[in-house]
Amino acid sequence: MAIPVSRESPLQYHLVRQDGQARAGVLHTRRGQVPTPFFMPVASQASVKALAPDEVRTCGTRSLLVNAYHLALRPGVDLVAKQGGIHRFMGWDGLVLSDSGGFQVFSLGGLRQVNDEGVLFRSHIDGSEHHLTPELAIRHQEALGTDIAMCLDECVAADASYEQVQQAMERTHRWAARCKEAHRTSEQALFGIVQGGQYTDQRRASAAQIAALGFDGYAAGGISVGEAKATLYRVAEETAGLLPAEKARYLMGVGSPEDLVEGVAFGFDMFDCALPTRVARTGAVYTRKGRVDITAAAFREVAGPLEEGCDCAACRWSSTAYIHHLFRARELLAYRLATLHNLRFFHRLMEEMREAILAERFQEFRSRFHAIYQPADEGVRLGNKQRWLEARRSEE
Amino acid sequence: MAIPVSRESPLQYHLVRQDGQARAGVLHTRRGQVPTPFFMPVASQASVKALAPDEVRTCGTRSLLVNAYHLALRPGVDLVAKQGGIHRFMGWDGLVLSDSGGFQVFSLGGLRQVNDEGVLFRSHIDGSEHHLTPELAIRHQEALGTDIAMCLDECVAADASYEQVQQAMERTHRWAARCKEAHRTSEQALFGIVQGGQYTDQRRASAAQIAALGFDGYAAGGISVGEAKATLYRVAEETAGLLPAEKARYLMGVGSPEDLVEGVAFGFDMFDCALPTRVARTGAVYTRKGRVDITAAAFREVAGPLEEGCDCAACRWSSTAYIHHLFRARELLAYRLATLHNLRFFHRLMEEMREAILAERFQEFRSRFHAIYQPADEGVRLGNKQRWLEARRSEE
Repeated sequence: MAIPVSRESPLQYHLVRQDGQARAGVLHTRRGQVPTPFFMPVASQASVKALAPDEVRTCGTRSLLVNAYHLALRPGVDLVAKQGGIHRFMGWDGLVLSDSGGFQVFSLGGLRQVNDEGVLFRSHIDGSEHHLTPELAIRHQEALGTDIAMCLDECVAADASYEQVQQAMERTHRWAARCKEAHRTSEQALFGIVQGGQYTDQRRASAAQIAALGFDGYAAGGISVGEAKATLYRVAEETAGLLPAEKARYLMGVGSPEDLVEGVAFGFDMFDCALPTRVARTGAVYTRKGRVDITAAAFREVAGPLEEGCDCAACRWSSTAYIHHLFRARELLAYRLATLHNLRFFHRLMEEMREAILAERFQEFRSRFHAIYQPADEGVRLGNKQRWLEARRSEE
Repeated sequence: MAIPVSRESPLQYHLVRQDGQARAGVLHTRRGQVPTPFFMPVASQASVKALAPDEVRTCGTRSLLVNAYHLALRPGVDLVAKQGGIHRFMGWDGLVLSDSGGFQVFSLGGLRQVNDEGVLFRSHIDGSEHHLTPELAIRHQEALGTDIAMCLDECVAADASYEQVQQAMERTHRWAARCKEAHRTSEQALFGIVQGGQYTDQRRASAAQIAALGFDGYAAGGISVGEAKATLYRVAEETAGLLPAEKARYLMGVGSPEDLVEGVAFGFDMFDCALPTRVARTGAVYTRKGRVDITAAAFREVAGPLEEGCDCAACRWSSTAYIHHLFRARELLAYRLATLHNLRFFHRLMEEMREAILAERFQEFRSRFHAIYQPADEGVRLGNKQRWLEARRSEE
């Protein structure tokens, strides 16, 4: 194993207050201090779908997630580097975390082959053949100039066997060591990813090994990959407790509003999910009581905002009836207004959770939230997730 | 014929300076003073495609065009009225002109039947049958609460015979009288439309009859309906000279940058066209030298703005390479950035023409513009126009 490069981390996590396992803290970065817990909208292709960077900022976003897999294929990481890096390229001066592309590549299914060296896969854009190794994943992310890079990991589906999960986990550890060795940029933080599927013993082994390598932060991977909600929560809670307390803890790809509340309760500090932006484009908007389909006839003449009391740009200047009309008429503005609302909803939820933790009344907040919020039906949710996993090759 | 209702016009045109036939003036309206000449972006369905109202304002827009045909079919003019009128519905406090829907209905071709009473047509949305009469066109526009309503006219294609053009023109006159009689709202201006195809004698007769009815402003209709550019210019120039000088003159559905320069030279004050917003969504952006296809490989690594010196929002914060990438990746933000640029290009052109007229150097401006600007090829242009006329049933 490589000798860890000794350096000052470009990212410092400071705990401000803990309430149960829930943590309110601050991430000190080159781009300022970011209060935790926080949610990162997904900008896979260097754009939060339907929004401009100034709007993203206005929604309360402090950190974006970009996807090194997508950007390596198009427009190419070297092009982004030549254009001054990802921040300058997309006009965003906040924090940027890059996913390595591991999850994308593994979701390609039959389009990829994996061995210890790396992954051979076909582009979802033009079918061209590409190779992704831990070293290349780091090189891509260094070229992009993101603030936080993620190790390349092997992510398996919820229905993988114990042996398949173990093999993937062990490979993830070998790759994590190679990522750490390949990573040279002192201005970019590098996060390790814990795998181990639904198996407590494997999660424990994985967390220990990844922590021993020493990273700037730690992520729980392989969660929300099609498993039942109860399993998701059990595994997330177990994994949070295994991650070093002095570093930021990131629950990858999670989730819905109710998942974010649970994730924070378990002790996670960072989250990302395409959900608020993706469902917005189908006309689904979040409210305190749950998700509603704004394209339904019931909203045709509603003069009020999408949600009373919401401070998002859409609720401030447009009526529900107008947004309903824009969706029916397939006007592009519809997608923007619903995205603005959903993203603000997610950030407001995070802000309220932080306040509740600081006031040491998080459990009360959590109970009240779940009493009012009606999650999407589990069967519908799993069906949607499955369809999405199958379709995601061409999506964010 | 009905006795004209005597009332103070809600719209006053004041000429500030004339240079040749080109006019710089001010339109005094309930919503403030609007400098002329000006260009109106098209918001057929109560949205300038891809933009929010505040952005439209920032581009320099002072007046929008909405389409009573589209809005009557969806969401319905009574719904808009119940929501407080078109301004409140779409969140726009500037001027709004409504087209009657005549042009849309006539472009439906086989889907409509016309007689003196009105037009029977099928909706482009669901095939349902609708009847449009001059009285209904006025009722629709009064319900919308637009600032300027247009008479229902009969618009014929560029290849119509002399007799066909004459019949349509005479029907247009009868309908104009009925529109004027039906129009009751003192807060809304009503414009008459001159028809007469490519025939000088018919244009002269039409202008005289429409002017005799007495309207708050006058429009040249039936121009840019598929004719050659030379014909378009001849007819537009002849018609401008026939319209009352003390009222605003509106050249409907025109046009490209070179057409706007000629339209102003002929003495028109108002223009509308879907061109800047429609072509933006295909990746075509306007520059001083002509239109360029930003999706072409040549723009892949261009670090500068779409056009040096442009003050539009897109040019201020994003590079050509980024916008090129967004188009290639089919990100919604692409359509917005290109639309912002094109709309600002059109408004800047109008502003520069007004300054040139005020400085009495409009001919110099016109010559210099045409020396530098390369219009789209005539054959390509007519082919595009033809395809667009055929496809427009479902478009803006």
